[in-house]
Amino acid sequence: MLVVMQSHATEEQVRAVCSKIESFGFRAHPIPGAQRTAIGITGNEGAFEAGTLEEMPGVGEVIRVSKPYKLVSRDLKPDNTVIRFPRTHVAIGGSEIVVMAGPCSIESRDQALTIGEQVSRAGAHFFRGGAYKPRTSPYSFQGLGEEGLKILSEVRDRFGLLIVTEAVDNESLELVEEYADMIQIGARNMQNFSLLKRAGRSRKPVLLKRGMSATLEELLMAAEYVMSEGNYNVALCERGVRTFADHTRNTLDLSLVPAVQRLSHLPILVDPSHGTGKRNKVLPMGRAAIAAGADGLIVEVHHDPDRALSDGPQSILPDQFATLMHETRQIAAVLHRGVAAPVSAARVLVSQEASRPAVAR
Amino acid sequence: MLVVMQSHATEEQVRAVCSKIESFGFRAHPIPGAQRTAIGITGNEGAFEAGTLEEMPGVGEVIRVSKPYKLVSRDLKPDNTVIRFPRTHVAIGGSEIVVMAGPCSIESRDQALTIGEQVSRAGAHFFRGGAYKPRTSPYSFQGLGEEGLKILSEVRDRFGLLIVTEAVDNESLELVEEYADMIQIGARNMQNFSLLKRAGRSRKPVLLKRGMSATLEELLMAAEYVMSEGNYNVALCERGVRTFADHTRNTLDLSLVPAVQRLSHLPILVDPSHGTGKRNKVLPMGRAAIAAGADGLIVEVHHDPDRALSDGPQSILPDQFATLMHETRQIAAVLHRGVAAPVSAARVLVSQEASRPAVAR
Amino acid sequence: MLVVMQSHATEEQVRAVCSKIESFGFRAHPIPGAQRTAIGITGNEGAFEAGTLEEMPGVGEVIRVSKPYKLVSRDLKPDNTVIRFPRTHVAIGGSEIVVMAGPCSIESRDQALTIGEQVSRAGAHFFRGGAYKPRTSPYSFQGLGEEGLKILSEVRDRFGLLIVTEAVDNESLELVEEYADMIQIGARNMQNFSLLKRAGRSRKPVLLKRGMSATLEELLMAAEYVMSEGNYNVALCERGVRTFADHTRNTLDLSLVPAVQRLSHLPILVDPSHGTGKRNKVLPMGRAAIAAGADGLIVEVHHDPDRALSDGPQSILPDQFATLMHETRQIAAVLHRGVAAPVSAARVLVSQEASRPAVAR
Amino acid sequence: MLVVMQSHATEEQVRAVCSKIESFGFRAHPIPGAQRTAIGITGNEGAFEAGTLEEMPGVGEVIRVSKPYKLVSRDLKPDNTVIRFPRTHVAIGGSEIVVMAGPCSIESRDQALTIGEQVSRAGAHFFRGGAYKPRTSPYSFQGLGEEGLKILSEVRDRFGLLIVTEAVDNESLELVEEYADMIQIGARNMQNFSLLKRAGRSRKPVLLKRGMSATLEELLMAAEYVMSEGNYNVALCERGVRTFADHTRNTLDLSLVPAVQRLSHLPILVDPSHGTGKRNKVLPMGRAAIAAGADGLIVEVHHDPDRALSDGPQSILPDQFATLMHETRQIAAVLHRGVAAPVSAARVLVSQEASRPAVAR
Repeated sequence: MLVVMQSHATEEQVRAVCSKIESFGFRAHPIPGAQRTAIGITGNEGAFEAGTLEEMPGVGEVIRVSKPYKLVSRDLKPDNTVIRFPRTHVAIGGSEIVVMAGPCSIESRDQALTIGEQVSRAGAHFFRGGAYKPRTSPYSFQGLGEEGLKILSEVRDRFGLLIVTEAVDNESLELVEEYADMIQIGARNMQNFSLLKRAGRSRKPVLLKRGMSATLEELLMAAEYVMSEGNYNVALCERGVRTFADHTRNTLDLSLVPAVQRLSHLPILVDPSHGTGKRNKVLPMGRAAIAAGADGLIVEVHHDPDRALSDGPQSILPDQFATLMHETRQIAAVLHRGVAAPVSAARVLVSQEASRPAVAR
Repeated sequence: MLVVMQSHATEEQVRAVCSKIESFGFRAHPIPGAQRTAIGITGNEGAFEAGTLEEMPGVGEVIRVSKPYKLVSRDLKPDNTVIRFPRTHVAIGGSEIVVMAGPCSIESRDQALTIGEQVSRAGAHFFRGGAYKPRTSPYSFQGLGEEGLKILSEVRDRFGLLIVTEAVDNESLELVEEYADMIQIGARNMQNFSLLKRAGRSRKPVLLKRGMSATLEELLMAAEYVMSEGNYNVALCERGVRTFADHTRNTLDLSLVPAVQRLSHLPILVDPSHGTGKRNKVLPMGRAAIAAGADGLIVEVHHDPDRALSDGPQSILPDQFATLMHETRQIAAVLHRGVAAPVSAARVLVSQEASRPAVAR
Repeated sequence: MLVVMQSHATEEQVRAVCSKIESFGFRAHPIPGAQRTAIGITGNEGAFEAGTLEEMPGVGEVIRVSKPYKLVSRDLKPDNTVIRFPRTHVAIGGSEIVVMAGPCSIESRDQALTIGEQVSRAGAHFFRGGAYKPRTSPYSFQGLGEEGLKILSEVRDRFGLLIVTEAVDNESLELVEEYADMIQIGARNMQNFSLLKRAGRSRKPVLLKRGMSATLEELLMAAEYVMSEGNYNVALCERGVRTFADHTRNTLDLSLVPAVQRLSHLPILVDPSHGTGKRNKVLPMGRAAIAAGADGLIVEVHHDPDRALSDGPQSILPDQFATLMHETRQIAAVLHRGVAAPVSAARVLVSQEASRPAVAR
Repeated sequence: MLVVMQSHATEEQVRAVCSKIESFGFRAHPIPGAQRTAIGITGNEGAFEAGTLEEMPGVGEVIRVSKPYKLVSRDLKPDNTVIRFPRTHVAIGGSEIVVMAGPCSIESRDQALTIGEQVSRAGAHFFRGGAYKPRTSPYSFQGLGEEGLKILSEVRDRFGLLIVTEAVDNESLELVEEYADMIQIGARNMQNFSLLKRAGRSRKPVLLKRGMSATLEELLMAAEYVMSEGNYNVALCERGVRTFADHTRNTLDLSLVPAVQRLSHLPILVDPSHGTGKRNKVLPMGRAAIAAGADGLIVEVHHDPDRALSDGPQSILPDQFATLMHETRQIAAVLHRGVAAPVSAARVLVSQEASRPAVAR
């Protein structure tokens, strides 16, 4: 159910409607729009007397929403969600495209700083790199844990890059939340509902990757889990799905980009590295993602992929990444979009704030 | 790496080899077989000097295992794993077939006791029913939680049925472990490695369901996660995979049964309810699963499926379940197998033990 | 559209309704049932005045059929289609199960006679073997062509086995029609509509295999193509579909068996050889197919599979085939079905008819 | 097997090698390259004495090719195949991108001329439109047949557009070959090997669409069938594959574009209309295809899609097509490619040749 307030409704009226909703044991989610505020109602389904709300001052109409997703829906919130990152100019979901780059996993301080410098110089906005790795085998490298998070933090301090990294359970989420700027929920955990709810109680934005065989509706419902707990800063990410096709590791389903944009106001990014699993396909598919309308890319970059502890064959080299950034800018222009300014350029500003508490924490 | 002891090796020699392995920082997993003991070695991969072990007394040979799974492998343990349940005659993975039945979710004490009586009378060995439900929508019924577990416990006390129920995170696993006889890890959590490791530290057996798009190797590696923590009582379960086919909710991949049996010593069960999503296909596919060689079935049964809070359309009626038990016995006989005796028949014995601590806990 | 005649309607009344339908430029397909005759109407869709027919003598009711398939539908013909083969006791789709066996392709007279004798002795009813092979590579063995058909004919003469073999285009269909008892349309040609229509104009029954990614509806519509040309003797065959799963060559979708039986009156067989692509899975899945309710099996058998020119790894040995026949009989009995008597037993009878024209041609 | 001639080898020497190959009962396929000629050898596999050829004058080396495809392989022919169309400037596979547009099926002369004019004005190079339609249902509109081909011919005469249209069997191929400039083999017939061989004996270029569940290797092998008969002018086309995903009719697998380009010298086009099945996804995916490196697009355009006899929901409007052409030009520029000049501009030239035999027939 969805309450659409009148355009001239006051904040007080919005609060009164929320209180009324909560007095019935439901949750109210006020979502301010450009012209009017909508209030999503979630909670135990069943009979709810719309009449009571319709008579309240400031209420425009009460709409019964038939789709299973509510808070993620463009019906509820026609304007795109733009996720802003404090003390930076970077925003996901606006007119500017955002690029996340870095190694599959953080292997050492040296490795992270080397790659961090290279992707920063090429114009990346986020540094990616796993400190907690969900690996198919219990005997594979599982990540450096908190030590990895500390290294990520140093990469941010040195290059001004924002940090996105994966949390795999409640314990790691608590640490990721503390060290990173954005919490990644991986494909294998897209329906780990406990983890989604915990992410929904965080104040840090969430990057939610599509599960390997998730439908669009399931992806949107996973985002709904996060949002229903109060965290509205969710970006979705296509990263390839399982099919019979064997020329790539996964089949990158770029049609998800326009499909998400039609149904939801949430930003949608694309990961051409996991989406293909092959270095020589990352650039073509990265370009294609931008052409399809994606709000950003997340790409694996490694300066020495043959010695990478994970996902070497799908990591591109720093030079290739620079080419990808260049092509991204040009294709974005065709769609009348830009690419966010490099964070390295903005560093001076950031370092001047160094006396204040650490960036975006 | 795998150490195969000589057939006349003493327990002391086995212990000495294990100590040596652990002194190198690895984990030793001694697996007693019918004729000789094998010792699996797991831990950080890399150079390990096999020579040291080969010279130790009682050691037959040291084998480098190339497959990514070790503890689950039939190479390591040629004999089938048989999971026994204390104070009952029921065992999973032996010559007798085991049947688990009950509602999708525990809705109320009445519902559970009604269905519990019916499936017990028809010859089921386990009662299934979710207290924690991983639902696609945050607004769907999520299960009764610990209250549901208490109801399950009562079903066991009343009908002698063993209890299998799903854990969705560490918190629920702790409770499930306490109340149930077997911990179910659902398809959505098959690669929730934190949960798998936690289940591996439990003393209760684990029923591990195949993920919706998991390969055989991924399923075996998920079991490896559980076993690598020391819990060797793992049963696998095919429950249908995602394909383009739309005449069933999932495509039940029965060829997984002989495929698992070839590579692994672990038992393999089949869930024809989730595997098809349609009531009228549960009996044909249940029979087919037994004919393919499955060690057991897990089936959704509801006395009033139209009013079920979840999965009504795929639940069979108690009468249909009785027919399925009958047909299961007949097809098992063709494969020279039996079906474990009904627990209801064994109840007298159990109730005589009533002065002792609660059954199978 | 479907005209259901009254139970006491005369043949003349049926004919009159058919004439009326054809006078409007449509085709009438009278289908006699146990109690009443139904008349399917096919042709260019659009407005058709049902009123005219409803008033005709003998007409019970006129039903607008919303499903895209008509002639294949159980709505049109509630009784199972039973395909009979002249001068034999073998019928597909009745209470008795039918088994087809033989090599992937006919390689030589010796090979065919050797295998023919072995499968005949074990109780097979049909001999299968390709004379025209649709091969992925233009450089692979493409079959012996008409010479292969002549060898098949000799197998029939020697062992009394009925012959089923594939036609790949109009030219080969003309020859297959002449030499064989049943025309196979392979998975790759399931939507070769020209070939389907040509098969629909044949008087020989058709075995139609499911395409590698065909939905149930597409399979039924392919059968509809054959039937709409007047050939109502069509048996369907599940042979595995394309999925991400890699432990078998295809994923055998046995749930198609009950799904077909619910919607259609046509018989449904299963091919566990192509359906798994692995010798060690043919017996388990063959048994499972019968348990799921299939009307028959089609199995690849080779006495020397390592030297087979095609599909060796999925061919079972003659001994394994004898075991499969034995288990098929036992599982059929659980479903209150039998297996058709061996044709070899019936041979004496047949050979007594030797003065008459050759068997089943 | 592959014979690579020396760079200074004479034509006579090439002919001598071909004769020698054919004298052994094999087929020789000389493929001239920029610097040297390669000669592919196809035919019944097995022992072939390379020594004989190696000693012949002009022979550089004889290479045993392990991949199942030969003539399609970039190993055999490093330079891209460029398919030229007589008396026009249009070429597929060169640096310029080519666009094919038109209705799903030819419904009437008026419809074809209306759409032909619109797509010609927007800059299309080919007019597409089915005269023979492979439809899932025998009761759906099956195309106008030869009448449709005559209409297509008129579209060419009026607007200078080249014509591409589908052949579904040998009969229709003979007519398509006569009327059209390029023969389309549809997804359902990708493994109709009789039809492929027939197309291989045509002198008109072939547009070969990927089957709904075809692997890359199967697609290349299908092209190999055409080429092994002597027709080397084959362009491939990705048109979406079958997966579990339900937000589009098919899943458009754009990674096939770089994958084909790596292994083969053949051009690769993309069909975003069938590839998505939804009008609102055609433009984003059309742009993405060009960004991924496709050599061209084939798009369904209809001026009145709600009344189209087939595929209305996936046809874009003429205005949208003009936008797509505009964006295609811009994205092509990013990849340092152009779009072939509109044929309408070239019409004057063509019409001056009107006294000569009809265009490109």
